[in-house]
This record gives sequence, structure tokens and C-alpha cells, in this order.
Amino acid sequence: MKITLAQLNYHIGNFARNKELICNAILKAKLDNSDIIIFSELCVPGYPPLDLLDRLDFVEKCNDTVKEIAGECTGITAIIGSPVINNNKEGKKLFNSALVLSEGEIVFSAQKSLLPTYDIFDEYRYFEPGKKFSVFKFNGLRLAITICEDLWDEQPFENEFEKKSLYTISPMEELAKQKPDLVINISASPFSYSRTGIKADIFKNKARKYHLPVISVNQTGANTELIFDGASRIVNSNGDIWRQLPYFREAVETFNLDDIIAGARPSGDIDTEPIELIHKALVTGIHDYFAKTRFSSCLVGLSGGIDSALCLCLAVEALGNENARALLMPSRYSSEHSVADAVALAKNLNVKYDIINIEKPFKAFEEDLAPLFSGKEKDITEENLQARIRAVLLMAVSNKFGCILLNTSNKSEAAVGYGTLYGDMAGGLSVIGDLYKTDIYRLANYINRNGEIIPDNTIVKKPSAELRPGQFDTDSLPEYRVLDSILYQYIELQKPADRISGEGIDGATVQKVIRLINYNEYKRYQAPPVLRVSSKSFGDGRRMPLVARY
Amino acid sequence: MKITLAQLNYHIGNFARNKELICNAILKAKLDNSDIIIFSELCVPGYPPLDLLDRLDFVEKCNDTVKEIAGECTGITAIIGSPVINNNKEGKKLFNSALVLSEGEIVFSAQKSLLPTYDIFDEYRYFEPGKKFSVFKFNGLRLAITICEDLWDEQPFENEFEKKSLYTISPMEELAKQKPDLVINISASPFSYSRTGIKADIFKNKARKYHLPVISVNQTGANTELIFDGASRIVNSNGDIWRQLPYFREAVETFNLDDIIAGARPSGDIDTEPIELIHKALVTGIHDYFAKTRFSSCLVGLSGGIDSALCLCLAVEALGNENARALLMPSRYSSEHSVADAVALAKNLNVKYDIINIEKPFKAFEEDLAPLFSGKEKDITEENLQARIRAVLLMAVSNKFGCILLNTSNKSEAAVGYGTLYGDMAGGLSVIGDLYKTDIYRLANYINRNGEIIPDNTIVKKPSAELRPGQFDTDSLPEYRVLDSILYQYIELQKPADRISGEGIDGATVQKVIRLINYNEYKRYQAPPVLRVSSKSFGDGRRMPLVARY
Repeated sequence: MKITLAQLNYHIGNFARNKELICNAILKAKLDNSDIIIFSELCVPGYPPLDLLDRLDFVEKCNDTVKEIAGECTGITAIIGSPVINNNKEGKKLFNSALVLSEGEIVFSAQKSLLPTYDIFDEYRYFEPGKKFSVFKFNGLRLAITICEDLWDEQPFENEFEKKSLYTISPMEELAKQKPDLVINISASPFSYSRTGIKADIFKNKARKYHLPVISVNQTGANTELIFDGASRIVNSNGDIWRQLPYFREAVETFNLDDIIAGARPSGDIDTEPIELIHKALVTGIHDYFAKTRFSSCLVGLSGGIDSALCLCLAVEALGNENARALLMPSRYSSEHSVADAVALAKNLNVKYDIINIEKPFKAFEEDLAPLFSGKEKDITEENLQARIRAVLLMAVSNKFGCILLNTSNKSEAAVGYGTLYGDMAGGLSVIGDLYKTDIYRLANYINRNGEIIPDNTIVKKPSAELRPGQFDTDSLPEYRVLDSILYQYIELQKPADRISGEGIDGATVQKVIRLINYNEYKRYQAPPVLRVSSKSFGDGRRMPLVARY
Repeated sequence: MKITLAQLNYHIGNFARNKELICNAILKAKLDNSDIIIFSELCVPGYPPLDLLDRLDFVEKCNDTVKEIAGECTGITAIIGSPVINNNKEGKKLFNSALVLSEGEIVFSAQKSLLPTYDIFDEYRYFEPGKKFSVFKFNGLRLAITICEDLWDEQPFENEFEKKSLYTISPMEELAKQKPDLVINISASPFSYSRTGIKADIFKNKARKYHLPVISVNQTGANTELIFDGASRIVNSNGDIWRQLPYFREAVETFNLDDIIAGARPSGDIDTEPIELIHKALVTGIHDYFAKTRFSSCLVGLSGGIDSALCLCLAVEALGNENARALLMPSRYSSEHSVADAVALAKNLNVKYDIINIEKPFKAFEEDLAPLFSGKEKDITEENLQARIRAVLLMAVSNKFGCILLNTSNKSEAAVGYGTLYGDMAGGLSVIGDLYKTDIYRLANYINRNGEIIPDNTIVKKPSAELRPGQFDTDSLPEYRVLDSILYQYIELQKPADRISGEGIDGATVQKVIRLINYNEYKRYQAPPVLRVSSKSFGDGRRMPLVARY
């Protein structure tokens, strides 16, 4: 018996495109003489459809598309993911279902039982948990069909306060009673650099515990913040990875089930360095944001610093140098190397750039505000003013040429509010907003792995916002090595203040940093969506009250 | 037996303040010789604490505060709301609990069973549903203690696609088996103008169904977007409202339980006009946003139009005229009446105002951008430029004087993207972003009910953004009467396009409006928090994918 894994890149609500992707894969599987093809979770609407699921018309389109796909399933069986209306009198209106299609019909369905409702997941907002468990009999085999979280009844959380067992039932424990021969897991599981090993372990552990092969099919591609890493896996009953599809790429591949069940030829884990995965994730994230909103070109404000340099490099990889454009906006406070370094980068990447000195509008604003500000000292107002003038220029170019402004804020500065709302915090998409500054350096060095693209001076110089003479980031913030360690322990690990520790970390600095994090929730509320690569990014995955005092 | 209802205004994470509020109410109840005092849901941490609940240190502070409050409960019993750690091996880490405190101890607890996870509610994100139900025996009576949604197992949704029974169990049905004498419901139930009647009906229907008095205690005050309307109710066993505490005000009142159970002297519903409630809600929302962030003064950009005029009126009511300040920023396209109308309003309100013509920075930007834009026609870029220059000026004044910029966008323009990101969409808090334009007129007339505050010309003139010569809103949008009806049917009622109908509404207009709504999700993503007064406001209660094609 032959089995095909279809790891594809879906577009939310774009039923025509999703159907075409699915039907093309079915055609390929037929050519491979496959018996069954497996797609990923909620592939019909795309994941996550969010509140589009509250619309009956949206769900009806899902149903129609499922029927059309079923019509293509002649001589082959397909497992797809789609929302299905809950016909019971009580409960949420939908199930998150795996549907088995064959000869034009839905011949079996399984309902997701464990509904992740934490971090970026809101599934209980829409779905009723499935409470019935049965295997699907196919070609003499009993298939345990599960949906993503259904296998995650035990998982290690980075926040020690979470329970290891987040749910009170275990779908696999229920299904095991029916003596399945094979476990299938369809998922829509986004990338986070600290969770790739954990994800593989989930499948390995289930395979070992039940002595069953586990086939997991994930999607790839990005939908706004969420970047799906693919890496669909076949784990044999010994718990070894027998095959793994590529990270961040579409793939439709057919395997011989007898080989899998025999457990022969395990090819071992496919180890990829975290920095390489982060790089691929961000390039995918940029690419898909543009492709899925039908925009082709981007704009980056280049300061000569490392953050904007890195963003431009990633954008060029995602969109091509002909679709990237840079704007340099020096001020009376800019150092000479700022422009020189930015120009060098633009030339290295062969990207069109323009230079506008912000002195003229800066002066105009200063003059207009002088009567109101008379007798007042210069302060953060004038610094923010410069950042906002730059945003006005960038947005004007963005509007005139139809290119999307990329935001270049990093996670360290977003965390402590070291940025100007409607200034350097502007942009349609935050490219590196989930990378701490120390990771920015790692990724910059990775970009330069085969030779200098980002000018060396950009990497080695002392970080500065250049909004007043002789300003450096360390005037207001601890060293990034110290700051990032505190931030990681507070944000990702959710440690109490008194348990945050490490080299160079003292209690007063911890308190100062935590105060800044909490105080600046209001700024992040209005920040652009952030490409998510960690286990706890700013945005939808971290919801904090704005007017709290804590 | 005497019973006290404590309807208070809590501050999230501000344990010292919440404890003080609670203890003062206990003291008052003691002076009233009360036997039991009832507070609202999660009053100890404040509602909604959101992801602060993911922090063990936060939950420990809740526990400590509960213990301290219990110490004050000498000679009186108190029912308070707090998160409690779930000590079971499996499940979510917390329960949303009602705790009964007496003589320094927690003598009883009930766990919330129905966890609202829709619209602005995310309770299953944090809490394990309670599955055990028992009555609390007190002074010979059996009290059925429920927490908010526990009584909402049946509720009418405006979206017809929702089931009337959202849950598969009914806590009150379980508790009824234990023959209670009285139902107590502690809640944190935010205001929405279309739900006040529904809310009262929930309690009335339960009272009638089980022939029991129902005492509901809600909180008041606002936490960012959410405005709690108070209106704690005592419903007698006939299902009549026997007493209702005030809307949007703190109140601690003691009643004789025998009177309630006897069902005597029902004083009937307290009917308040929706427009009056909306007015109170918005004033409360502004006031508490400032009070809880320790800011005292605000800034409004006055255009001479009705939206900014209304915002300034509400701000003055909330903060006092001495804490409001206006900035008028006419351009080469402003009509004469714009400045005159704005000045008239500022004078009517006795609010300090300044006038800055934006010509100088506008020219500076135009000149700087001319080389890049050569050969390009004038378009939306130049319109956005003016809106963004105004935001730069407003934010400079905001920064220099430490006053928060109020955003003046309305729901109609936010819906269709008729606004400039980082321009007129800027601000710390959106005051009227949950009011359609037609409701703006209603509220403006309500403001003027006792005499002209908003100049009549501001109300009667044709809406215009004045970003190019002779521009009117109706150049790009349908008449507001038509637009708002389409928006309401699409956003609140979630009707499919082909079922949206009414006077002046045709299919092409519906399609155009829906396209605009969907296309502009990216703008709303970066909008400020919106004071919520409807059943479906933009912001956290409506989560839409940004890169969808639907």
C-alpha cells in the first residue's frame, strides 16, 4: 500500500487556490499509484481562519469545497482538514475535523478533541471538542486519525507554572483501545525555534508508547505572523524518524507503507541549525505576506545600523533586489558612517536607494511648535519628532509607489519601549520583532557566512539611535547581553523577578527592565504584526492588560 | 438576615487598591449589621487580568490578598472572586473561583464551569472548567453560588449561526438538584448597548424557572476597552427586578434578605435610554483609562467636524476642562468654517486651544519628496501626508506636555479604512471607535440636549476630510445611513452578503463595502484600543486574518 504526504502552503479564505493545490496533489498521488493521500489540518479554509469561522457563509464555502475535492477522489482516498458544523443541539457551532474522502463521498470523519487555547491558539473560541474516538478501517488496516494537539496531551512548557498535562483526556489512549495499526496526525503547527525538537519528540514518544508508526502532515508557508515549518514526519514504531519532509517548502511525496511498518531504513533526524531555520522562517514570512496580499515590492528605511540592514537582506532574499527599495534619512545628528554604511549595503545588494535629509521638515516643525514649547527644555519630544518625520517620508514613498514599508524594530527594543510610536515602530510587517538584539547579531553573521553583505562596520559599531549628539543605546538600557537574558527569562520563561539571574544581572536592573516592559504595553498594542519565530512573541500570543499596575 | 452588594471599580494587578476597596466595603457592611457581603468576579486581581494569569507570582499575590481579606471577615461572611490554583494533576492551571471567607478562613469555594471563550472573552485560555456543584449552607439557607457565565447556558446571540445553548452542561440545573434557597451570581460583565435587556432577562428567566431569588453582583469602572456597567440586580422569585444598583457607579448597599425572599415591593426595571448609557459608558471609559494609567490630561485634534467635537465634549466631562487641550491644524484645503467651528467649541467648553497651520511642514515634505515623485500625479499620498503631519504635531504636544492624544475615528470610517494610519488613526485611546457615524449624530444631539455645546454648524454640515479641494465623504463612500446599515448587518449580525438588505442598499454597494472592510484589516490591526459599547467592536473582540482573501 502506498501513502502520500502533501505538505502545502494554503491561503486563508482563498478556496479556489486551496482546492487547486489539493487537487494537483491528488493528481500527483494518482500518478504515483498511491492509495491514500494526507493533507494538513484545516487545509480547506487555510489556518488560522480566526473569526471568519463565525460566518455561516464562510463555513458553507468550506463544505462546498470539500464536496468538490471529494469528486476528485476517484481510485484514491484523501484525508483533509475542514471545519464541520456541529449538529448537536448544544455546544460550539463547529468541529475541527479530519475528513476521509473517497469516490465523491465523505466516508469517515474524526473531530479534534484537544483544542489548544493558549499563546497564539484560540481553538475553543470556535470549536466543540470531539468526544468520540474511532479508527478508520482502510485496506485491512486500522488508522487512528488525530488532529494536531490530539497527540499533545503531554507536553513540556517553558513556563514552569503550566501543567505537563494540559487536558483531562488523552485521545490516543482512547484510540489505542481499538488496536490501530498506524497513527495519522494532521496539523497546522507553526514554527518556533525552541520547539522543533519538542515537536519531533511528541511523535517519537507516541510511536514508542504505542509501538505504532506515526505519520504527521504539517503545512508550510506563512499567514501573517505565523510561519509553518512543514517538516512532516514519518516516525516508525521504534520511535525513530524514518523520513522528514523539508522545512519551509512544499512537498508531495509518496511512500510504501510496508517499508514504514517494517521500520526498515530509518534515516535519522534531520538536524538543522536553529539560526538556519530562523533565516528560512523569516524569508518565508516576508515572501508570503507579500504574495498573499498581492503586493510585490517593499521599502526599508536604512539607518546604517544592523537592524534595518538585516531586514533589507531578508527582504531581498524573499522578494528579489528589484522589488526592494531603500530610503536613507540622515539628520543633523547622524554620523558620517551612517550614510556610508547604508549606501554600502544598498550597493552590495544592488537595491535602489534615495537619500533625503530630514532637516527641512524638522526645522519647519520646530518653528511651528516654538510658540507652544517656549520655556520648555528639549527632551524626548524632539527625538520622537525625528523618528516620526522619517515615518512620514517612508509612508509617503510607500503610498506613492505601492510598496509596503517593512518595520525594523527588534524584540529587545519593543520589549522596553525603546522606539517611537508612529515613528520607527511604523510598518506593515515587523520582520525581526521576535528576535532579541543578541540574535540579530547571530543572524547578521549568518547572512555574511559566504562573504560580506552587511558591512562589517554596521555589525561592529556601538548601537545608537542617533537622535541627539553622542547618543548610544547603553545610555538608557543595560548592555544587550544582560538585557536580553532578563527579557528571555521574564517573557519566554515567565520567571518571577526574584528568580531572574545570570552574569551581570542584579535586582535593580531586573526591576527597571520589568517596569519598562509593563509600562510599554500600550506601544506594542499599536505595533505591526510580528513574524513569530520564538515560543512567545509580541502580538496575539501575548495578551496583556494596558491599564494594569503590576 | 442582611445581605450587602458591593459594586466596585477594580484596577487590574493593583492588589493594594483592590484590597482597600474590598476592606472598606466590608467595614461599611459591618456597620450596616450585614451578615454577608458579595463582591464581583475576579475582584481580587481585577478583570480581565489576561496573560498576567500565566505568571505564578501574580497568582501568588492573589492568594496572599485573599488571605489578608479573610482576616478582615470577622463577624461577617464575604464572597469574593479570585483565581485559584488547580491542584489536580491534569488540566489548566487555574480555576476562576468564588471564595467564601469567614473568620480568617476560606470556608467554601465554587469554580466557574462555563468559560466564555468568544468575542472579548478568553477564559478557557487560563481556566479549567469546574465540574463539581454544591450549595453553600449559610444561616440555615442553601446558597447556589455561580460565577457570571454559569447562568448563561442559554443566551440569544445576534449572530444567528451561534447555537442558543453554547455549552453542554447547565450549572444551575445541577445546583437545582440540591434545593437551594437563593441564587448568587458574581460577574464581570462589560457593557454593550444591545445587551442590557438580554442581561436582565438572563436573571429573570433563571429566577422564574427555578422559583428562586437571584442576586447578581457586577463590577463597574473600565479597564482599557471594557466598560463595566454595574447595574447589580436583585431579582425576586417571580422574576421581577426588586432592586437594581446604579449604572456605571460604585455602590455598596445592604438589603434585608427576608424582604427579597418574600418578593415584596418589587420596584420594577430601571429603564435607561441606550444613548444615555452609551454616554455614561464613554465618560467612564475615558476617565478610568486616565486614572488607571496615572495620566490626568488629554489632547484632541479639533477639525471643526463632529467626531473630534464629540470626543472633546466627552473628554471634558471625564477629565474636566482644565485637563483637556485642543490643537487646530488647518491646511490650504481647510474651509473657513472649520477653524471657526472648532474655536467656538473650545470656547463653549472653556478648553485651551492652539492653532498651527500645517502649510510649512507640508511644503517642506513636498519639496523633499519632489525629486522622487517627479512625473507622478498627486494622489492619496498627499492626502495621507497632511493627516500624518497633524499626527506628528499632536504627538509632539502630547510628548512635551505629558497629555494623552485621544483618537477621534468613528466605527464607520474604521470599518472601511477611511482614515490614515499614523495620521488621524493615531492616539492612545479611541473614544468613539465603536459608534457608527449615525450614532455619532445621536450622541452629539444628546450632548446638546440642554443647549448648544457642539456648534450647530458642526452637526449639520456635510462631512468632509478636507484633504483636497471640495472633498466630501460621500465622494468615496455611500451615504452614512446606507453604509452604517450594511456595516451593522455584516459586522454585528454577521449576515452573508446576499442577505444584507434595506432601504437604499443594493448588491453592488454591499460588495464594495465588504471588500473595503476585509481589505482594511491591516489598518485596524495597528489602531488604538477602542472603548467598547456594542456587541462587536473592533479590537480584541473581532480577530480577523490579515492576509486572507475573502
